[in-house]
Amino acid sequence: MAIISVGSMAFDAIETPFGKIDKIVGGSGTYVAYAASHLTSPVKQISIVGEDFPEEELDELKKRNVDLEGVEVIKGKKSFFWSGKYHLDMNTRDTLITDLNVLADFDPKVPDSYQGAEFIMLGNLMPSIQIKVIEQLTVKPKLIVLDTMNFWMESAFEDLKKALGMIDVLLINDSEARQLSGEYSLVKGAKKILELGPRFLIIKKGEHGALLFHENHVFFAPALPLEEVFDPTGAGDAFAGGFIGHLSRTSDISFENLKTAIIVGSAMASFCVEKFGPQRLKEISKKDIDIRLEEFVQLVNFDIDLV
Amino acid sequence: MAIISVGSMAFDAIETPFGKIDKIVGGSGTYVAYAASHLTSPVKQISIVGEDFPEEELDELKKRNVDLEGVEVIKGKKSFFWSGKYHLDMNTRDTLITDLNVLADFDPKVPDSYQGAEFIMLGNLMPSIQIKVIEQLTVKPKLIVLDTMNFWMESAFEDLKKALGMIDVLLINDSEARQLSGEYSLVKGAKKILELGPRFLIIKKGEHGALLFHENHVFFAPALPLEEVFDPTGAGDAFAGGFIGHLSRTSDISFENLKTAIIVGSAMASFCVEKFGPQRLKEISKKDIDIRLEEFVQLVNFDIDLV
Repeated sequence: MAIISVGSMAFDAIETPFGKIDKIVGGSGTYVAYAASHLTSPVKQISIVGEDFPEEELDELKKRNVDLEGVEVIKGKKSFFWSGKYHLDMNTRDTLITDLNVLADFDPKVPDSYQGAEFIMLGNLMPSIQIKVIEQLTVKPKLIVLDTMNFWMESAFEDLKKALGMIDVLLINDSEARQLSGEYSLVKGAKKILELGPRFLIIKKGEHGALLFHENHVFFAPALPLEEVFDPTGAGDAFAGGFIGHLSRTSDISFENLKTAIIVGSAMASFCVEKFGPQRLKEISKKDIDIRLEEFVQLVNFDIDLV
Repeated sequence: MAIISVGSMAFDAIETPFGKIDKIVGGSGTYVAYAASHLTSPVKQISIVGEDFPEEELDELKKRNVDLEGVEVIKGKKSFFWSGKYHLDMNTRDTLITDLNVLADFDPKVPDSYQGAEFIMLGNLMPSIQIKVIEQLTVKPKLIVLDTMNFWMESAFEDLKKALGMIDVLLINDSEARQLSGEYSLVKGAKKILELGPRFLIIKKGEHGALLFHENHVFFAPALPLEEVFDPTGAGDAFAGGFIGHLSRTSDISFENLKTAIIVGSAMASFCVEKFGPQRLKEISKKDIDIRLEEFVQLVNFDIDLV
């Protein structure tokens, strides 16, 4: 089953306690595409880049059955650039530079050949842009997943509320869930957020794992305890790509299968953080993924009897 | 199988964002005894209280097969008193008052009738006191669990190191694990700590669950996502009581059964935080515990195939 993935493709400069890199390919759409392409194909990408975006990166994505018809290349302009520095705990970071460049004019068009895709991944973008993509779809998809952030809750809340009424799965982190709901308790907050439209809510807690809420059900997926988190950039997007990739591969949007999809997403995120940028997502094999999934099974597996 | 539980029995004054109570029974030993007594008996308590400690509380414990022969009651003196205030996130708290009172002279004696107990729970006390208890045991126990805190890492490190060489399971929180190991990564830190003596290390992460390390294995138990954490006081001790209570009940100290014991401990902690003090631990029935254990199964249960 096909996925449409909408998100940035960009350059990042990253500093972590373990190292520093001045320019590496990044962007939420890039991470989603690499992660999802391990699980399913095609991934139909919608994005915008400048003429500085490396041809080899586009070729690498094509080799993995990522359809780039929806990726605009703007001559004479530069790609989106983000620069950030992580603190020791790796859960907090300072944004140093945000050069929107081509992203300032991003007006995504869904190519005719993309129509009919069953799974839609809307990366973190201005909510009005996310809405525009949904409105262009001529066939109702099986599942729409939306990622967003605190910035849009503050600057575009009405559009965001409208978007939430059009999607199936909302993907945010714990502080964003608290901000969006006005509740400190994530359980109370989740109830309020589900009333805004989405049938499923995923709350990402970084190294503390992720929670999936649906009706009165809750599922918890741990993050894999790693010796070192080298670079957390893109982990949330790799999670999203693994999540929707698994759903597309299995074509099953039951709560039970969303639980599994979250484990697959967590596995992809655990690879992502091992090196700078999307590097690890390019190196890993299906066997690596299977081994890691088994590690997740071992991590949480227990037997219990009644007391 | 019998448990010896060594720990404080005290009064607390607690302020949380949800309420305030000026005086309630507390102390690590109290919480351990209430939690463990739901799972096994007898719990053989070693503690010290003043003449102000309520007779009804002692009767309540006796009714639950908690043996109080090892609890000294000091005439003319007051019980240990702790007062603290929790912040909104409930993971951090300020200690307002610590009146050691009788605890200043605590010199625990293991009664003859306690000898031969298979499971030993050493609550957070001065490491030299914990060592004294171990040295009084005439029969080598099956498993010794030790709880400690950052204060002893700073003020009594040599004694603590000695104690770590005499026990089987160390129970600390994430910031204590980082302090004890000098490693930010909990995985790296766990390896170093296991080299200090204990065969098992449990790292408690509060609302983010708990990790169990043993050789090259790691197990993760989530905390139950609750609508409200009313009062976190004693949650770590209720966890310890549930943990050792399950081990004593099943008399099995395999890694697999320690995993289950951590889930049982997490369940007892999840009850503990629902009301002030040990109140909820007194109210719950075996059926309540079974229902909660099933909630933990549902919380983390997933099916997965190879990709």
